[in-house]
Amino acid sequence: MNGAHSLLATLRANEVTTIFTNPGTTEVDLMAALDSFDDVHAVLCLFEGVATGAADGFARVTGRASATLVHLGPGLSNGWANLHNARRAHSPIVNIVGDHPDAHRLLDPPLNSDLEGLTQSLGGWFRRIVDADDVADLTAEAVGACYGPPGRSSTLLLPSNVAWSDVAAPPHWPVARRETAPAPSSQDVVHAARSLRTRRSAIFIGGDAVSGAQLALAQRVCAATSSRLIMETFPAIFEHGAGIVSPERLIYLSDFALGQLSDLEVIVLIGATAPAPPFAYRRGPDQIVAQGCDVIDLAPPGVDTFAALDSLVNELDAPPVSNPSGSPAEVPPGPLDSHALALAIASTIPEGLIISDESNTSGLHLYGATQWSNRHRVMTLTGNAIGFGLPAALGAASAKQGRVLAIEADGSMMYTLQALWTMAHEGLDVTVLALSNRSYAIVELELRRVHQPLERSSSQLLVDLDDPALDLAGIARGLGVPSVRVETTQELLDALLRSYSTPGPMFIEAILPHGIG
Amino acid sequence: MNGAHSLLATLRANEVTTIFTNPGTTEVDLMAALDSFDDVHAVLCLFEGVATGAADGFARVTGRASATLVHLGPGLSNGWANLHNARRAHSPIVNIVGDHPDAHRLLDPPLNSDLEGLTQSLGGWFRRIVDADDVADLTAEAVGACYGPPGRSSTLLLPSNVAWSDVAAPPHWPVARRETAPAPSSQDVVHAARSLRTRRSAIFIGGDAVSGAQLALAQRVCAATSSRLIMETFPAIFEHGAGIVSPERLIYLSDFALGQLSDLEVIVLIGATAPAPPFAYRRGPDQIVAQGCDVIDLAPPGVDTFAALDSLVNELDAPPVSNPSGSPAEVPPGPLDSHALALAIASTIPEGLIISDESNTSGLHLYGATQWSNRHRVMTLTGNAIGFGLPAALGAASAKQGRVLAIEADGSMMYTLQALWTMAHEGLDVTVLALSNRSYAIVELELRRVHQPLERSSSQLLVDLDDPALDLAGIARGLGVPSVRVETTQELLDALLRSYSTPGPMFIEAILPHGIG
Repeated sequence: MNGAHSLLATLRANEVTTIFTNPGTTEVDLMAALDSFDDVHAVLCLFEGVATGAADGFARVTGRASATLVHLGPGLSNGWANLHNARRAHSPIVNIVGDHPDAHRLLDPPLNSDLEGLTQSLGGWFRRIVDADDVADLTAEAVGACYGPPGRSSTLLLPSNVAWSDVAAPPHWPVARRETAPAPSSQDVVHAARSLRTRRSAIFIGGDAVSGAQLALAQRVCAATSSRLIMETFPAIFEHGAGIVSPERLIYLSDFALGQLSDLEVIVLIGATAPAPPFAYRRGPDQIVAQGCDVIDLAPPGVDTFAALDSLVNELDAPPVSNPSGSPAEVPPGPLDSHALALAIASTIPEGLIISDESNTSGLHLYGATQWSNRHRVMTLTGNAIGFGLPAALGAASAKQGRVLAIEADGSMMYTLQALWTMAHEGLDVTVLALSNRSYAIVELELRRVHQPLERSSSQLLVDLDDPALDLAGIARGLGVPSVRVETTQELLDALLRSYSTPGPMFIEAILPHGIG
Repeated sequence: MNGAHSLLATLRANEVTTIFTNPGTTEVDLMAALDSFDDVHAVLCLFEGVATGAADGFARVTGRASATLVHLGPGLSNGWANLHNARRAHSPIVNIVGDHPDAHRLLDPPLNSDLEGLTQSLGGWFRRIVDADDVADLTAEAVGACYGPPGRSSTLLLPSNVAWSDVAAPPHWPVARRETAPAPSSQDVVHAARSLRTRRSAIFIGGDAVSGAQLALAQRVCAATSSRLIMETFPAIFEHGAGIVSPERLIYLSDFALGQLSDLEVIVLIGATAPAPPFAYRRGPDQIVAQGCDVIDLAPPGVDTFAALDSLVNELDAPPVSNPSGSPAEVPPGPLDSHALALAIASTIPEGLIISDESNTSGLHLYGATQWSNRHRVMTLTGNAIGFGLPAALGAASAKQGRVLAIEADGSMMYTLQALWTMAHEGLDVTVLALSNRSYAIVELELRRVHQPLERSSSQLLVDLDDPALDLAGIARGLGVPSVRVETTQELLDALLRSYSTPGPMFIEAILPHGIG
């Protein structure tokens, strides 16, 4: 038994049994050790950004940590952007990063870099393991730390000499003690309840609090206090569809969000941090919370949101609210646009579908359209770092909780398209709906705030993706995923329904109008 | 005129006129400003690792800096791995990273991260610009710093408010003063010359010193002192082919490198750092320089290698050496393997070709086979971070110094395959020769040092790329590059020759035996 075995045994004892990875030479002892752990599943990803995004998706749908295993500084850097999204989602993840032995690092071999500095820049918890006898305890500590609350990344730097060094198996593998999220104080609950009752107010909800059950509690509180219920723009994962409360959602574009929040005197945070604009502008708001509006931090990330909502319901004696019901709108025939797209998706969602939503501008109508669809869950782009959608879908599907639909903008898809191969390799039930608008439409929209680009100008060429046109379906086929191209709502409906009833991955390229339409 | 104009005007004044980029909302003012600079060329890349690798390739073939423009922390992190390779190549690069305005950053918007920490972990020079009036001077300083010597990355963090703020144009745009590389002292030259003459010795050459002219000087020194001339395993760019000295090359695998260097009493460094093994092993060397061997640091990176070699020639009064001549070996017909592949490439290289070599195990025979080919230059994987080859080829081709051949292993290609689209978008003269061995063969080789994986075992599945098979030619076609698949030497020869005489990019998928063969 060596350090590598000790690490895997401890992960298994802590129920971390899925490892998304692209390993290299410093990780060969861990690779070898995997053959002694039939119940630990290593998922090969052809780029580390796929591995980290997959770990994030897995965490969002299960609430449980998986691991990533990557190769020194460059491997970790390739996974950094999706760990940024995971940090914003408070996803528990254990990263294992192979490194050179200490003595060898002093020679500054080619792959050596400032790995500590890079790891620190991720935020979260990290340790370098220097002694194989510490592997088990530090691995358990890493698992404990990644659960927070709130959840975060834990990163273990594992020099190869630690992985290959012999260790004695302990009588028991250490199991992490998991901290429980504290409930807000009754004083804070009373204060929040009074504020909601007496002033123009909203609950701003997100994070752990956007399950159907908690949204229903929040709705009771809001009904009892004539407050609004507003969901953050990009929750890690929320429940949606028939029977689930569908709150208004904070608008992405700051000018509109400013108007949306302008009359509020109080915002009570449940699972979310204070509303902030994604970007600031020379001529435009750099703050969206109205001046003088109080923000009450009742249950920020890391606090027990269920307890907070339950206490508010009790404090206010808020009665249950009956939900209206409806059904998805009819799907218009003809060529696709963002509206028809949303209706086609909404009318076909099977019960329990998990959506990985990186649809960006093309997905504008999705949230509204799917209100009466079958119950489903939606993961979104928490950290605004594109390239999240396909990896997260891969990770979510690896959790085997049912089919996953990735709704993916073309520009974003190109960041981490390697995920498609692993979907095929693992035979995962993922439908990828790739939205071809041949444009970085959101950037074009923002560019046009400051500038009117001429056709074929330098700036316009930086937002167009049509020269040459990307054959997304062809690329997906090359990566091993059966694919089809659709141009009408009927073709899209057929393709979606066929994919939902066919095991394994399927790729659908949907042709939309060019650009911001 | 605003900060963005000031930055571009200063870059132009410093002859930095190519910008590899994937911009976002924090960069819209820079995008807009580009339309006022016809002679600054922005090259859109569909992933930041492509942009940074392209800047590295551009620097290697021109000796000049280009710029990258990326979007906050996630954008920079996506480019980190190829900046690591660039750091090892001492390539001058100016990175411009857009950021949120200071006041907005305090709200911790979704894309906010520890950007300073991330930037610092890259090494090199960096500054955050806080005042638009400082843009010109700091940009010039960044350009000066990136040239070293030795070359490095300079990174400017440019908050969007600095980019959009008005500035007055200065009477002259500041131009960076470039430091010249110091020559070694005559005392050091005398000592090195005496050591070379009197002991079993080698010149270990690399970095700036592997041009044809300097290799010839080094050969004179070695002939006059009965020393060996050994080139580092992975030089940034070296000249090769008929009429160029072809030194022995340090072997990648440590066990063999140890034997290669075992009889040396002295190693004199010219342009290179001391030989170090890429990895250390439990059972194997963690050092390849023999115990007791003196390493004389005559001209490490940053010192004038030409002056060092010229001084050695003079000190030793070393006469010119006549070079043997030859011609490439005949190419055997039949299916491809790594040997036939090398011979086919060698026999078709046009004069002046620039090769981006990320062929890994499949390229084993390339260096030897191409000794008598037409003169060419070769860029290699300096930092061992895979995903370098296609972006570097893109950057080298952007410099318009003639055709580029990227020889690219399939596993490495998958890291940054987005580069293919930009080759088509820009109509660049690049031939991509993708080597399909359906395997991470180098990792498999290293794994087998410690473990014999069973078929379909966890560890074996982490090095195989054949389930499903990647259709590399199909993927390239989907990205807009004409492509062909070849299985025999004749097909390969035909495809190479056709690509060399056809403007624009061409992709050739070469089918090789599976794995380590």
